[in-house]
Amino acid sequence: MIDLHDMGRRAQAAAVALARLSTEQKNAALLAIADALAAQTPAILEANRQDIADARAAGTDELWIKDRMDLEKRMPGILADVRTVAALPDPVGKVYDARTLDNGLRVSKRRVPLGVLGVIYEARPQVTVDVTTLALKSGNAVILRGGKEVLRSNLALVNTLRSALAAAGIPGDAVQVIDSADRRYVGELLRLHQHVDLIIPRGGSDLHTFCRENSTIPVITGGIGICHLYVDASADLESALAVIHNAKTQRPAVCNALDTLLVNQQVAADFLPRVVAHLGKDGVTFRAEPRALALVSGAGVQAAGPDDFDTEWYALILGLKVVDSLDEAIEHIRQHSTRHSDGILTQTPAHADRFVAEVDSAVVYVNASTRFTDGSALGLGAEIAVSTQKLHARGPMALEELTTYKWVVIGEGHVRP
Amino acid sequence: MIDLHDMGRRAQAAAVALARLSTEQKNAALLAIADALAAQTPAILEANRQDIADARAAGTDELWIKDRMDLEKRMPGILADVRTVAALPDPVGKVYDARTLDNGLRVSKRRVPLGVLGVIYEARPQVTVDVTTLALKSGNAVILRGGKEVLRSNLALVNTLRSALAAAGIPGDAVQVIDSADRRYVGELLRLHQHVDLIIPRGGSDLHTFCRENSTIPVITGGIGICHLYVDASADLESALAVIHNAKTQRPAVCNALDTLLVNQQVAADFLPRVVAHLGKDGVTFRAEPRALALVSGAGVQAAGPDDFDTEWYALILGLKVVDSLDEAIEHIRQHSTRHSDGILTQTPAHADRFVAEVDSAVVYVNASTRFTDGSALGLGAEIAVSTQKLHARGPMALEELTTYKWVVIGEGHVRP
Repeated sequence: MIDLHDMGRRAQAAAVALARLSTEQKNAALLAIADALAAQTPAILEANRQDIADARAAGTDELWIKDRMDLEKRMPGILADVRTVAALPDPVGKVYDARTLDNGLRVSKRRVPLGVLGVIYEARPQVTVDVTTLALKSGNAVILRGGKEVLRSNLALVNTLRSALAAAGIPGDAVQVIDSADRRYVGELLRLHQHVDLIIPRGGSDLHTFCRENSTIPVITGGIGICHLYVDASADLESALAVIHNAKTQRPAVCNALDTLLVNQQVAADFLPRVVAHLGKDGVTFRAEPRALALVSGAGVQAAGPDDFDTEWYALILGLKVVDSLDEAIEHIRQHSTRHSDGILTQTPAHADRFVAEVDSAVVYVNASTRFTDGSALGLGAEIAVSTQKLHARGPMALEELTTYKWVVIGEGHVRP
Repeated sequence: MIDLHDMGRRAQAAAVALARLSTEQKNAALLAIADALAAQTPAILEANRQDIADARAAGTDELWIKDRMDLEKRMPGILADVRTVAALPDPVGKVYDARTLDNGLRVSKRRVPLGVLGVIYEARPQVTVDVTTLALKSGNAVILRGGKEVLRSNLALVNTLRSALAAAGIPGDAVQVIDSADRRYVGELLRLHQHVDLIIPRGGSDLHTFCRENSTIPVITGGIGICHLYVDASADLESALAVIHNAKTQRPAVCNALDTLLVNQQVAADFLPRVVAHLGKDGVTFRAEPRALALVSGAGVQAAGPDDFDTEWYALILGLKVVDSLDEAIEHIRQHSTRHSDGILTQTPAHADRFVAEVDSAVVYVNASTRFTDGSALGLGAEIAVSTQKLHARGPMALEELTTYKWVVIGEGHVRP
C-alpha cells in the first residue's frame, strides 16, 4: 500500500529546497550523480540482469530486451549525458520582460521551476536517469512510475541517485519512485493535483490517451508523429532523395521518422520510381494511392489501404501519394498529420513560405529531414519529451520547458486608483 | 440537439482562415465590430431587458442583476474596450530564438494562434465581447458557452459580431455560441479535444474544479485568490495602512482583493489596532487568530474560525494573524495561499528578496497592493483570465498568452548523421 499523497507532500517539500539551490550546487550534485552511477554500475547491472532474466523467462522478444531494457552497453552514454546536463545553462532565475509602468511600478517576470513532475514511462530504465537529471537541473522534484518489467533496475538507479543527492545536501525526496507494478497507482498519480504540477507520459499513443482522459493535472501529450514530406515541382530531386532516405531509414522506429511522401504530379513520374529504387534496396516497402501506384512497381509496392495515411509506421514502410499542387499537399497534411514534424522540399521560396505559414505542426521543415525533431539536434542540449499539443511548450522540450515564471511587482506603497 | 463536433469542425476551418489574416485585416474587423455593436445597441439592449425581466420574475437578486447581467450602462465601455484591443500589438507572426546551428540549419520559433478556444462563463454578457475580440486579435476561433440567464443577450451580441465579421470577409464561424441551457453540452465541450485546443473557464471555484475534473483538453484554471500581505517589522506603517486599505476595500468582490493580513510581532501591538480602526470605519470586519485577537477589539472583531484562513472572502472581511518572523509568514502563505497574489510590505531589501524568491505565487508584490493583478494594470492592455496554474501562462493572460509557437527549421538538403 503506497501513500501517494505522502509521496506528493514529500516531493513538494523537496521542491521548495530545490528551488533555492544555486546553479553551482545543482551542477555539483549532477557531477556527484555521474560519479555515483559509475561507482554503483556493478550493482545496477546486477539488478538489470535479474529484470532481463525474468523477461526472458516470460518469453519477451530478445530485440525488445536489447532495445529497451538492457543497460549494460548504455551505462557510459548515460554517465556522459548526466555530465552534459551539468554543463547546460540553468534557466531558473532568469529575469525578463522587465519594465517600469507609468505609475512607477517595476514589473518583471522571473523564471522558476514548475515544482513537482509526475513521469510515467515504459520499460526503459535509462529514462529514470534522463528525467531525474533534467528535473534536478531545472529545480523540480519528480515522482517516477516506470515499466514494471524494469522495477529492479529503476530502484537500483534511484537508490544511487538519492544517495548522491543526500551526500550533496539535497533531499533524496527530490526523486521518488512508485515501486509497485499495480496499475491503479498510475490512475492515482494522475489525480494528485494538490501535489503534482505536470504529468509527462513517455510511451505510445495508448499511454498518452489514457493520461489525457484520466488526469486532473496538465499533461504533456506528444511523441506521436505521422510525419510528411512534400516534394514540390521545383525540388532539387537529388537532394530530396537523400533527405527522404534519411527521414525514412536512419531510425525508422522513432516518432520523427517519415511516414508519408507527397509528390507533386509534375515530377512524380520521374521521381517516384527513383524513390522506390533507392529506398527499396534498403528494405523499405511502399503503400501507394492509385495515382502513385500507377507510376511505381516492384515486390515492395502495394496499394494503400484505407487507414494507411493515418498510420504511424515505426517501421520501414512509406506511404506514397501524388498531389496536384501545394494546396493539395497542405490540405492532406492538415487532414492526416499529428502535428509533430512535416516538411517541404522546394527551390521556390514563395512555396516554402506558404508551407511554413499554413502547416500548423510543432516543427515545420524546409529542405531538411524530419529526423532533426529532437532537443539535442535542435540546440536544446537535451530532451525530456516532444510535445504535439499547443499549450506551454511545443516540439522538443528540455530545461526551460520544465520551468514557469512568476510576476514580480515592486512598488513604493502603490495603490490601485 | 446541438452537434458540437460540427461546431468544432467549423471552428477549426475558421481558425485556418484567421491564422492567415494580417494585423491590418484583424484591426479593421475589430473597428467594424465596434461600429456594429454601436449600431445594434437598441436590439442588444432589448434582448438584455428580456433576460433581466425573466431573472426578476424568477426572484433574482437586484444587485446581482445590476452587477452581472445588465448591459445598459456598460455598452460604452464595451465599445471602448473593442477599440483598445484593435490598438494593441499583434503577437502573431513574431519570430524569436532564431539561430543557425553549427551544421548550417537555420532554426527559429514563430508565434502562431492556438487554434480554437472553448470558453465557459457565467451570466456576464460582456464576456462574450471581451473574449471574442481578444480571440480575433490573436487569430483564434471561439466556441462560447455563457450563463443561461443571459442567453438572449449573448445571441444578440454574437449575431452582431458574426455579421460584422462576415462583412469584413472573415468566416462568422470564428465565433459560435452553444445556444442551449442544457448543461450536458458543457461536458461535451470539455471532451472535444479533436477540435478545441484550450478551455478557459471564467467563474467560481466550482466551475474551475468541474473543468479540471472533466476535461480532456488543457484548462486554464485560476481566478481563485486567497491573497496575503505580510507587514514586516521594518515596514513603513503609514504606507502599509494605505496599501492594506486599498487591497481590501477598493473592490472587495474580486479575486485579487486581500484576504489575510500577517503582521510581524514586533509591530503588531502598534499596527493592528490602527488597521482595525482605519478599515473598520469603511465597514471591514475582522477574523483574528488568538495573538491578534489579544491586540484588537471592537464590534467588528471576532475570533477566527478553523477555516477562516482558507477562505476567499469576496467581501469586507479580513483575517488577522501575528507571526514571529519572515519565515513564519512565508510558511503560512505556503500553507494557505492559492498562489494568486501575495505581497510583503518592508523596508529591508534582503527580506523583500527572500519573500520574492520563496513565495511561489503567480504575482509576488513588494510594497504594493495586490489589486494590481490584472492584465490592464500590469501592462498587457487587456485580460482574458488570471491563471493560478503553472503551465503555459501564469497570472494575467492577454493576447500573447492566447498564442503558441511553431519551430521553423530551414536547411539545404540537411540529413541527420
